[in-house]
Amino acid sequence: MITIEGITQMRGVSRKAREEGKLIALVPTMGFFHEGHLSLIRKARKVGDLVVVSSFVNPSQFGPGEDYGAYPREPERDRTLAEENGTDVLFSPSIEEMYPQGYSTWVEVEGLTEVLCGRSRPGHFRGVTTVVTKLFHIVQPHYAIFGQKDYQQAQVIKRMVDDLNFDLRILVEPTVREPDGLAMSSRNLYLTPAERKDTVILYPSLLRAQELVQEGERDAGRISDMIRKMIADVERAEIDYVSIVDGENLRPISQLKGKVLIALAVKIGKARLIDNILLSVDE
Amino acid sequence: MITIEGITQMRGVSRKAREEGKLIALVPTMGFFHEGHLSLIRKARKVGDLVVVSSFVNPSQFGPGEDYGAYPREPERDRTLAEENGTDVLFSPSIEEMYPQGYSTWVEVEGLTEVLCGRSRPGHFRGVTTVVTKLFHIVQPHYAIFGQKDYQQAQVIKRMVDDLNFDLRILVEPTVREPDGLAMSSRNLYLTPAERKDTVILYPSLLRAQELVQEGERDAGRISDMIRKMIADVERAEIDYVSIVDGENLRPISQLKGKVLIALAVKIGKARLIDNILLSVDE
Repeated sequence: MITIEGITQMRGVSRKAREEGKLIALVPTMGFFHEGHLSLIRKARKVGDLVVVSSFVNPSQFGPGEDYGAYPREPERDRTLAEENGTDVLFSPSIEEMYPQGYSTWVEVEGLTEVLCGRSRPGHFRGVTTVVTKLFHIVQPHYAIFGQKDYQQAQVIKRMVDDLNFDLRILVEPTVREPDGLAMSSRNLYLTPAERKDTVILYPSLLRAQELVQEGERDAGRISDMIRKMIADVERAEIDYVSIVDGENLRPISQLKGKVLIALAVKIGKARLIDNILLSVDE
Repeated sequence: MITIEGITQMRGVSRKAREEGKLIALVPTMGFFHEGHLSLIRKARKVGDLVVVSSFVNPSQFGPGEDYGAYPREPERDRTLAEENGTDVLFSPSIEEMYPQGYSTWVEVEGLTEVLCGRSRPGHFRGVTTVVTKLFHIVQPHYAIFGQKDYQQAQVIKRMVDDLNFDLRILVEPTVREPDGLAMSSRNLYLTPAERKDTVILYPSLLRAQELVQEGERDAGRISDMIRKMIADVERAEIDYVSIVDGENLRPISQLKGKVLIALAVKIGKARLIDNILLSVDE
C-alpha cells in the first residue's frame, strides 16, 4: 500500500492505472475506520484492480455548530486497517490543497437533499456532493462504494452521477452493526457507557416496524408512532426525525408500498445517530 | 466527420480515442456558427487529435424573459461549416437526454458570477457551468476552447475547473470581429439594418479607452464615463453595464494596474451585445 497526500501524485497514479486498463475502485471516507469502512474496502477489492481509499475530514459538510473540530482522527491505525483489508492507495489530501484560498465552486442536488438529514443539516449534502465530485475527478474511479447507513447520501450521489453524466458506477453496501444491533459509526465514540446502552433501542425499533409491515400494517403514521414511542421510552434520546419515505425520491408517504425507507436520526448525548431499513412492500 | 446525438455513443467514441492515446479537444457551442466559432474549431484542430464540437442550445442558461425560443438555429449550415473547419465529431444531444424528468443537480461558482453579466442575468452562469460539467464528463476532453468575447464565462469555467479538479486545460481564443469592429455573435442576427449601424460605436469606445490608458489615464471612473458618453450618443443604445475590473477576480477597480478588463453590455433593439478588451497596465 502507498500513502499519497498530493493531488497531482494521486492523479498520476490513477492515470497510469487507466492507461494499463485497470479498473479503479474508490472508497471515500473521513477516516477513523470501523468495520463498516472495512467492508466497503473489501468490496472495492472484489470489483477493482486498483483500490483507492480516500481519507479526508471534509470541513464543508459540517455545519457551524457541528463536530468538525471534535471529529475523531487516528491515521496510524487507519493505515494498518486499510492495508490489511486490501487498499492499494490511501489518499489523504490536505485541506489547503482541497480548498485553497478563493475556493468558490459548489455542486448541489436539489429535492433529495431537502428532506431527512438535509432538513436538520442545511449545507451538509452540498459539502458532500462537492467533495465527492472533486475526489471523482482526482481519482477517476470506475466504481465508488458507499454504505447503506448513509442511505440518503448514497441516493444524492447517485442522482448527481446520473444528472452530471459521471462515467462511473455507485455501489451501496449493507450497514455493518455491533453485536447488539447499533449501526457502526465513527460518532459512536462520543457515547458515554450509559448513553451507549440507550442506543440499543434504535435498531429494534426499526425491526419492530418491519414486523408490523410483515403483519400487514401499511399506514406510515401508525408505524412511525410506534417507533417514536419505543424511542421515547429512553430518557436520553432526543428524536430529530422518524420518517417513512419513498425509497427512490425520499418523499414522505402515508401508505407503504413498493420500495420504502424507514429512517431515523436521534440525538443521544453528544452523538447524532442515524439508522434505516429498506423494505420492499407488497401492495 | 460524424454526427452524434446520443450521450452513450459520444462517450464510446471518447473512451476509444483515450484508449488509443489520442488528445481530445472540445469546442462547446450553442450552434449557429460564425467566424468566432470557426476560429475555436481551428484551434481545437491544432491542439487535438480528436476534435469534438458540441452544439446544444442549453435552456438552463437562459433566464425567464430571455431569447431561448428565438435563439437562431441552422443545423445544416453548421454541419458543413464544422466539417470544413476540421471537426471530427459534431455532438448534438437532445434536451430530453441532457435534462431528463427529475433533473436536479447544479454546479455553481460563487463570486465571479455575481458581477458584470451575472448581475443582469441571474442563474445564467449556473446553467453554463452545469452544462459544461456535463459535456466535460461525456466528452472527456484534454482541452476545451472558449472565446474571449465571453471573457467572464471563460474565467468562471477556469475557476470551476481548478476548484473541482477537472483534469483538462481551458484555452481562450481572441474575439473575432466584423470588418467594422463588431464582435461576432449569433445574436447580431437580431439587429435591424439601422440598429446594426448603431453597433459600430461599441468597439471604438473600447479602443478609445485603451488609447486613454496608453496616454497615461489610470482613473477607472473617468475612462468608463468616456465610454458611456460615446455610447450615449447613439439613440437606440441602452447600457446594461460599462465596467472596469480586475482581469482575474473581476472585482471593480478604481485605479488601473496589472491585468485589467474593460467590459460592456449594451442593448440595441432586441439584441443584448457584449464586448471587452483586456489590458496589461504598467503601474
